[in-house]
Amino acid sequence: MQDQIMPGQKEPADTVRIPVEALRTLLARIFERHGTSAEAAAILARNVADAQRDGADSHGVFRMPAYVSTLASGWVDGQAVPVVTDAAPGFISVDACNGFAQPAHQAAQPLLLEKVRSQGIALLAIHDSHHFAALWPDVEPYARHGFVALTFVNSMACVVPHGGKHPLFGTNPIAFAAPRAGGEPLVFDLATSAMAHGDIQIAAREGRQLPPGQGVDSEGSPTCDPQAMLDGGALLPFGGHKGSALSMMVELLAAALTGGNFSFGFSWADHPGAQTPRTGQLLIVIDPARGAGANFAQRAEALVQAMHDAGQPRLPGDRRYRQRRESLELGVALSEADLAMLTKLAEG
Amino acid sequence: MQDQIMPGQKEPADTVRIPVEALRTLLARIFERHGTSAEAAAILARNVADAQRDGADSHGVFRMPAYVSTLASGWVDGQAVPVVTDAAPGFISVDACNGFAQPAHQAAQPLLLEKVRSQGIALLAIHDSHHFAALWPDVEPYARHGFVALTFVNSMACVVPHGGKHPLFGTNPIAFAAPRAGGEPLVFDLATSAMAHGDIQIAAREGRQLPPGQGVDSEGSPTCDPQAMLDGGALLPFGGHKGSALSMMVELLAAALTGGNFSFGFSWADHPGAQTPRTGQLLIVIDPARGAGANFAQRAEALVQAMHDAGQPRLPGDRRYRQRRESLELGVALSEADLAMLTKLAEG
Repeated sequence: MQDQIMPGQKEPADTVRIPVEALRTLLARIFERHGTSAEAAAILARNVADAQRDGADSHGVFRMPAYVSTLASGWVDGQAVPVVTDAAPGFISVDACNGFAQPAHQAAQPLLLEKVRSQGIALLAIHDSHHFAALWPDVEPYARHGFVALTFVNSMACVVPHGGKHPLFGTNPIAFAAPRAGGEPLVFDLATSAMAHGDIQIAAREGRQLPPGQGVDSEGSPTCDPQAMLDGGALLPFGGHKGSALSMMVELLAAALTGGNFSFGFSWADHPGAQTPRTGQLLIVIDPARGAGANFAQRAEALVQAMHDAGQPRLPGDRRYRQRRESLELGVALSEADLAMLTKLAEG
Repeated sequence: MQDQIMPGQKEPADTVRIPVEALRTLLARIFERHGTSAEAAAILARNVADAQRDGADSHGVFRMPAYVSTLASGWVDGQAVPVVTDAAPGFISVDACNGFAQPAHQAAQPLLLEKVRSQGIALLAIHDSHHFAALWPDVEPYARHGFVALTFVNSMACVVPHGGKHPLFGTNPIAFAAPRAGGEPLVFDLATSAMAHGDIQIAAREGRQLPPGQGVDSEGSPTCDPQAMLDGGALLPFGGHKGSALSMMVELLAAALTGGNFSFGFSWADHPGAQTPRTGQLLIVIDPARGAGANFAQRAEALVQAMHDAGQPRLPGDRRYRQRRESLELGVALSEADLAMLTKLAEG
């Protein structure tokens, strides 16, 4: 996921700032008002508010109308109560029961932490779930526990495999988090598509053309028009055949291994208004203290220093953390139009 | 790792073919003659012979003079006896004691298989090791056991981080294997650099120019000359900032988490003739039968069918398997010059 707000960028004139807690409360009201349980509302509201707080606009409040439309379609069960199965000493399986993935993850998290501590590595496999959010909020907390975490989510078919003609893979993101001794955790969240789907939507909304190599139109021909990619076209994987292989891996880990649907196993036509496919998520968490790398956070800090010395201008996650600090100090930035939209959704 | 031999490509006139078993025996004699234990010789010879068999030239017999030079330098201990520690129910730590990674992996493999079966997921963390080989042979066997495997190796600093000026990361490959019901396992092995180091060496040897975006010269300026990349220059990560983030992850998993050296933690100047850094390797193996994805191999087969239907011309590993079938039928292809070189190394 690419952050949108450049540090130092001038703020638009219609920007308002509200405390992150107030934003969470407002968003939770919207989720509950539109059909989720109070538990799911609190979890999803925190996720969306935190994305907005961190300048991750494509997964911030921009997503709320789509969440509401999805819930209104009846396709996702906002009241789902996830079923957690302790499948093996290192393996937890969760049936999200057609609810969102985040409440399913939360329901299993205490058991997952217990297993990581006792086993050294553990896996959480969620199926029958909808993941419509940024992925880094799923891994960052584990790094704050001192663990290393890696997660994979598949999504709706919108990416043409390398050398192919028709969309098959989802944007299939991978997120990773690791603790470091001298600063915020090292966290990245990257779509295996050339761009994240939310960023294509934002570019289309803003009427911006994209650089070459991001996607194809409905004929399968290369295009720089984000709207053409959305109107029957598709995205390309990042990095050619390598990104395509990683996207295939995400299908296998997040869908085949969890028991979730593949990204291509779904037709939107059957669910007007729905915008999230029912797929799966795999999360692997490792306790580095169990091996010979017991000083992991210090080693990670040495790597960060070496990246600085090699001239790397920015660490993964840097923009998010900078934006987060600003938001915690000044309040979370929203456009007046977005705040009006949220207020309407909370009442409507 | 990119396969070199195109199917249907005309064989050079000086090609000889020898049975894979005979090649393994010849290579084992070379390893033992140049300082490895009989156990290590058998394991490494199988690895190199199998790479040659599968058309993976950059890790085939081409590598033998470098193995010999490395052993002669005294930098790698060919007689090392790996020490396996059962660190936690899901966590094995192996001290390769400055030997090659493959014998360390083999020493821990029975315990790893036992842990995967009982825990559902297990991890092997090797440190103080030298990995100078293709990575797919490390994961393919697990897929034949019905497991899903993922491995990460860091290597010598030769890749400039995205936006940086100086080499820091290794080519840092990731390999993945998964079983499928209707054919050979799905296996990929990809350098997180734009090209594998062995492929740069082959291009330099053949005097071929490379496409743009693969590397920089000693000034940090973009170049298409593979020799300039080798002479004080460096490679670039594949896929821009995303490949760079994955390469950073490989450093954290394969070095910081295992207790191995980072790719930048080594100066060749201190070890004339040596060509492999002392680093680490992480291997994660999962039993898909423990979750809701118990029909994993059938699901993987459905994904393969969908990739065909989407027009994907070739699966990861296809070229290797095709070349393997040909080699098993006709013998492994070698140039007369390479065979003469091997014969000399076996005697010399």
